[in-house]
Amino acid sequence: MPSDAHIVKAYTEEIAQLTGLVSEMGGYAQSAVADAVDALRKRDGELAAQVIEGDKRLDAMEAQVSSLVIRILALRQPMAVDLRTVIASLKISSDLERVGDYAKNIAKRSLILNESPATGPINSIHNLSRMVQVMLNEVLDAYAKGDAEISERLRERDEAVDAAHTGIFRELITYMMEDQRTITACTHLAFIAKNLERIGDHSTNIGENVAFQVAGERPVERHLADDDPDTVDNL
Amino acid sequence: MPSDAHIVKAYTEEIAQLTGLVSEMGGYAQSAVADAVDALRKRDGELAAQVIEGDKRLDAMEAQVSSLVIRILALRQPMAVDLRTVIASLKISSDLERVGDYAKNIAKRSLILNESPATGPINSIHNLSRMVQVMLNEVLDAYAKGDAEISERLRERDEAVDAAHTGIFRELITYMMEDQRTITACTHLAFIAKNLERIGDHSTNIGENVAFQVAGERPVERHLADDDPDTVDNL
Repeated sequence: MPSDAHIVKAYTEEIAQLTGLVSEMGGYAQSAVADAVDALRKRDGELAAQVIEGDKRLDAMEAQVSSLVIRILALRQPMAVDLRTVIASLKISSDLERVGDYAKNIAKRSLILNESPATGPINSIHNLSRMVQVMLNEVLDAYAKGDAEISERLRERDEAVDAAHTGIFRELITYMMEDQRTITACTHLAFIAKNLERIGDHSTNIGENVAFQVAGERPVERHLADDDPDTVDNL
Repeated sequence: MPSDAHIVKAYTEEIAQLTGLVSEMGGYAQSAVADAVDALRKRDGELAAQVIEGDKRLDAMEAQVSSLVIRILALRQPMAVDLRTVIASLKISSDLERVGDYAKNIAKRSLILNESPATGPINSIHNLSRMVQVMLNEVLDAYAKGDAEISERLRERDEAVDAAHTGIFRELITYMMEDQRTITACTHLAFIAKNLERIGDHSTNIGENVAFQVAGERPVERHLADDDPDTVDNL
């Protein structure tokens, strides 16, 4: 049956193309976050501009994922693990696109911060950025390996991220109280910290979808992660 | 063929159940936003607590939508407009769940604001909240009617929302500069304004997905809306 074999091959290739595209998006999102954080730390406007410009690529890739998902669903009518892969890819690509948006927003704000002297709890923010970068790297690694265990681990890490974020919020208020010339900069830093915390949330979401794809473990829902952080409760 | 007729009926009912569920989520999200904004305006802690508690319902409904989507895709293998409806429902439910999260976050912050005297550009924030409530109402109406034209209109409205948000950001900085006792409250108000602006973005996203569902017009992508606002460029 050369014809059937041909169809099966094309189908397998399309699923591989889809997961390849999502992995590629993951790599881009990782770089965008790393570059945005570097641009902030080094006050490097050129790098920030690259991050802002580069975000279009992630948007285009998400659109490609959506089109491919619809094509596969319409023509191949996937079942079981293939169906879960298709739905998880759609959801993960949406999370990665948002991660790119947050990186872009950090880059934009870093450009504004470069216009005035450095201020604020820079070390705490770098610490937070390292925490969420580890989360993003781990979840993309788990996606590549099909590791369904990641989901639980990430939820624990996410709690640490939320706590760090709350601490930064408090520090920022203190800076602003002490020197009102820092108010504009610190307000931007508050949004940058929030963006980083959200990247942690999206990494946790991706972990839930990896678990769903691999083990069919849970509905593809936004679990704890995409909820608003309890940050606000603690202030 | 009673058996075939039975299958077709069950299929039609499932699609109707799906769109009914999404409409119901829309109604909940609308109420959540309206109540959160009211709780903020009237400094009504009880209403804020209700919004916070009620968000679980939206989370559960999103999970229901996901499960139903997977069931329909696995058992019914929908084509053409039905397939678009299924994918659009998945995406729209995700946007509505986020709208609920933003409403909840506004409610949480309103509780904190109640602990100190009212301050900040309250009128501008109420004006912004009315603008995004109109957007959300319009897009849910368009969803119910299958109005593909909504997408373009919402993009224009979203620009006005972004401009209003930028104005509020500037006002908040001024308040904080003039009286440092307002810094904590104004920082929360800055996040509330951002949440409102994001509800506008998600409404625009929903509009794109309504257009996709009805007319197959564009890939189900995050178009302009879920990009970061140009707000930051203008500061």
